Amino acid sequence: MQIADLIKANRERKFFAHYNENPKAYDESLMAKGLEVFQKRLNSNYELPGSPDAEFYGEEVSPYLQTGLGIHYPKLAVDKVIAQAEEGFDAWRKIDAQKRFDILFDSLNRVSERFFEMAYATMHTTGQSFLMSFQASGPHACDRALEVMVSAMDQLGYYPSEVDWVKNMGKFDLVLHKNYKSIPKGVGLIIGCSTFPTWNTVPGLYADLITGNSAIVKPHPKAVYPIAIFVEELQKAFIANGLSPNIVQLASDGSNNPITKTLAEHPSVKLIDYTGGNAFGDYVESLGKTCFTEKAGINSVIIDSCANFNAVAQNIAFSVSLYSGQMCTAPQNIYISENGVTTPEGLISYDDALNGISQAVRALMENPKAAAPTLGAIQNDATISRVEDTIKQHQAQAIQMDIVVKNAEFENARIKGPSIISTTAADTATYMKECFGPLIFVVKTKSFEESLSIVKNSAATHGAITCLAYTTDKQRMDKIEDEMNSVFTPVSFNFTGAAFVNQHAAFSDLHVSGGNPSGNATFTNADFINKRYIWIGNRYML
Amino acid sequence: MQIADLIKANRERKFFAHYNENPKAYDESLMAKGLEVFQKRLNSNYELPGSPDAEFYGEEVSPYLQTGLGIHYPKLAVDKVIAQAEEGFDAWRKIDAQKRFDILFDSLNRVSERFFEMAYATMHTTGQSFLMSFQASGPHACDRALEVMVSAMDQLGYYPSEVDWVKNMGKFDLVLHKNYKSIPKGVGLIIGCSTFPTWNTVPGLYADLITGNSAIVKPHPKAVYPIAIFVEELQKAFIANGLSPNIVQLASDGSNNPITKTLAEHPSVKLIDYTGGNAFGDYVESLGKTCFTEKAGINSVIIDSCANFNAVAQNIAFSVSLYSGQMCTAPQNIYISENGVTTPEGLISYDDALNGISQAVRALMENPKAAAPTLGAIQNDATISRVEDTIKQHQAQAIQMDIVVKNAEFENARIKGPSIISTTAADTATYMKECFGPLIFVVKTKSFEESLSIVKNSAATHGAITCLAYTTDKQRMDKIEDEMNSVFTPVSFNFTGAAFVNQHAAFSDLHVSGGNPSGNATFTNADFINKRYIWIGNRYML
Repeated sequence: MQIADLIKANRERKFFAHYNENPKAYDESLMAKGLEVFQKRLNSNYELPGSPDAEFYGEEVSPYLQTGLGIHYPKLAVDKVIAQAEEGFDAWRKIDAQKRFDILFDSLNRVSERFFEMAYATMHTTGQSFLMSFQASGPHACDRALEVMVSAMDQLGYYPSEVDWVKNMGKFDLVLHKNYKSIPKGVGLIIGCSTFPTWNTVPGLYADLITGNSAIVKPHPKAVYPIAIFVEELQKAFIANGLSPNIVQLASDGSNNPITKTLAEHPSVKLIDYTGGNAFGDYVESLGKTCFTEKAGINSVIIDSCANFNAVAQNIAFSVSLYSGQMCTAPQNIYISENGVTTPEGLISYDDALNGISQAVRALMENPKAAAPTLGAIQNDATISRVEDTIKQHQAQAIQMDIVVKNAEFENARIKGPSIISTTAADTATYMKECFGPLIFVVKTKSFEESLSIVKNSAATHGAITCLAYTTDKQRMDKIEDEMNSVFTPVSFNFTGAAFVNQHAAFSDLHVSGGNPSGNATFTNADFINKRYIWIGNRYML
Repeated sequence: MQIADLIKANRERKFFAHYNENPKAYDESLMAKGLEVFQKRLNSNYELPGSPDAEFYGEEVSPYLQTGLGIHYPKLAVDKVIAQAEEGFDAWRKIDAQKRFDILFDSLNRVSERFFEMAYATMHTTGQSFLMSFQASGPHACDRALEVMVSAMDQLGYYPSEVDWVKNMGKFDLVLHKNYKSIPKGVGLIIGCSTFPTWNTVPGLYADLITGNSAIVKPHPKAVYPIAIFVEELQKAFIANGLSPNIVQLASDGSNNPITKTLAEHPSVKLIDYTGGNAFGDYVESLGKTCFTEKAGINSVIIDSCANFNAVAQNIAFSVSLYSGQMCTAPQNIYISENGVTTPEGLISYDDALNGISQAVRALMENPKAAAPTLGAIQNDATISRVEDTIKQHQAQAIQMDIVVKNAEFENARIKGPSIISTTAADTATYMKECFGPLIFVVKTKSFEESLSIVKNSAATHGAITCLAYTTDKQRMDKIEDEMNSVFTPVSFNFTGAAFVNQHAAFSDLHVSGGNPSGNATFTNADFINKRYIWIGNRYML
């Protein structure tokens, strides 16, 4: 496929995917081979081309096995990482954009040959199910990276590389020869998270690289393996083209010896991409560097009216259960008016609606084929204790999902199905904060108008990445869209069946708006590219 | 001309101008009429459609007459301005982009009918010559505004307004109807300066408006009249389309009662455009809002080698004399190696080169037809005293231009021709700071390499909007471009004749790179547009 075709596909926003998300579409033998490679990697040093003399360290724990993986990664001194990044930058900035594209595309194709290893690496660091691990860390991440590269080729072609500017001055023509250059800013730092170690990291990583910057990847110490695969294949692609592997480096650290702030504050680091919690994200934003943050928000659901309440309840049940609510796009607060939900069969009362959602979650959890693959495992213990503490504080309002879900393959998996707390609009102390993990709040409001007003205010104040709304009333639909968009929150309307609010597709959905406190950047709009370099126009009199 | 054609012209970067910069191209009677309107305006209240009940105040002084203009402008309470801006925003954000374009274009065409009045208004507030006043505040400003509008129409059309996203799920198609909306951020504040009250203000003003934001223009209290003409014609264009005039407001204040910080810090103000000194610019940037700054820098000239030194000296003499060095693009420091300047006739020593530049300035100042129209007048007394203080401190190194330039038309004009201080590379305390106005420093360095190194460091540390370089050596040319571009400073090479480094043309030259301390934004790149709104994608299941 030509770049021009990719640019066209990216602009059209219709369904487009370059890498196949279906593991069954790949050669049957790859699954077993991927597992074998993964197992061989356990209890070994993960050597990288760019880090020959490094010490090694690792602390990953499988949420499925609850034992350490024993994989150790190169651990370099910050000064060395920076010096190598500067060297890498000086080489890479001189490579033209088309060549950069070719090399980076090569790295993605190399990664695609390791999608099954990637799936196991992701499962056993994040706790995602096999299918989500395969899709999110493999084809979906590669598509997001390709989307960034294609967006960049579009933006970098905005001005002609050179032009003759001819101004008639009456008796003569004034001719100036001009060139236009995109000058990369320097060294970029990409700070990863523990739940989506590649999907959330590769957009910033490939955006830095395609625009000519060098990159330092600082993974979460509990989820290094998946992104190490990307770094390795990038380094191999650089070496294959006679370039320094240090154009990209893995700078891993330990929970007890973090290096993120030292890297972020280093004057050589000009660009920072960050995914994670709000406190650290606010710190990153306060540094005054060019930065791209995805922090947390509170995602809301408004249920006003619908054609089929069971379909709505099932859709919500899946969305809140998927990866145990550990997705930044997962709904947390569900707002239903005390007047109930309008349906063709008549009004469904608040209590019946609450019960309907609760039953749909229970049905999903009691489905032995669906429950474990939907939930995956909980990435870390802190999420479990936070959820359990919250439930304890609100025992009277909690609808405990007392079902115990077992994973047949992994008996030690850290699993917890979603719990529900039923509350009222006035009780903001209970529900108006982010509660990451398998816990949702159903909030009884006075009216549709109150629901919308709270959801809007919540997005403006606490941030929101998604908003899911159910209404069959066109006026209310327009009002929700207008009000939520005005606080820079996109709305998904009337999702049932196979459409889930959690899912943002590359080449079509803008992930995080950048306009509310959930983050200042978007995968992938023009700003996500253009802030990484400066346009310079030089003029020559010939 | 169709918008598609304008977008094409803007992308091509070839010479393009929509408004004619030659006053002689306009009807002969317009000059006298413009003067008449200007004179009638003196000592009166400047009424604006949007400010019926305002108090009036003004403090402009003509640099040519050194008497007050006596024009008083509406002065509204900040709370009222903000409330009206919010109202204006709520109406304007609902107008589609094409309609916004038409209304704003109408306003520019209305302004174009007042270009001669505009010229007098600009002369007698800024001290620019008649020709510069006409060009910069009239056609060039309108072209910069149109460039912004065209750039915005290009950016706002990036995504389709709606699309059906169809994903084949094996046994069925998942269809989502999606829309993409550019949501404006809110109220914009544009803070003007005293030397280019429209050219530097209208890009931010029209960028806010074309993207759907409302705008508050806070002019410099000594240069209100020119931008009041824009605000008035915008308000008339809004009214002619049945819209509130308060989509744009003039918020003038007095030097002793400034309201800029109150406006800038108001939570309703989401966007700030600023032109002016560094201290206030740094304050604006520290507010954490979306902001676009053009601050000061130190512009440098490197003279290494040339084909014709006299042509070089004449070009520099004009560039440093034009509007008495009160342009943000004017050169300040000229670096020449102690090894001299290489020319086809042999080496020109440092002293001879210094003398050549000094003689070229003297010749220009002694040319009675050229001197006064080149210099214009000094906008304010502070510039004169700053320059004179600096000369006093460096009496021994100063090459005083003792020529007295008289303006035949305005005997009281505040005029000062350029002075030159000759210094050495080591004496950074003398030359390594911005000295706004008619004063330049010629700096003797050890070598070409030292010149370039100082100029690069100067741009990185103090900022630079332009860099002028003279060299006939291709390797040095490439080195200058590479090194200066790496600190985000554009270079103009070997300008002689009618090409001047001071001049940045709309639809071709990027004004300020946004990558060094001279400012964080560019007239006009994609960022200058895209930061003013947020892309939102909504999804519907039908």
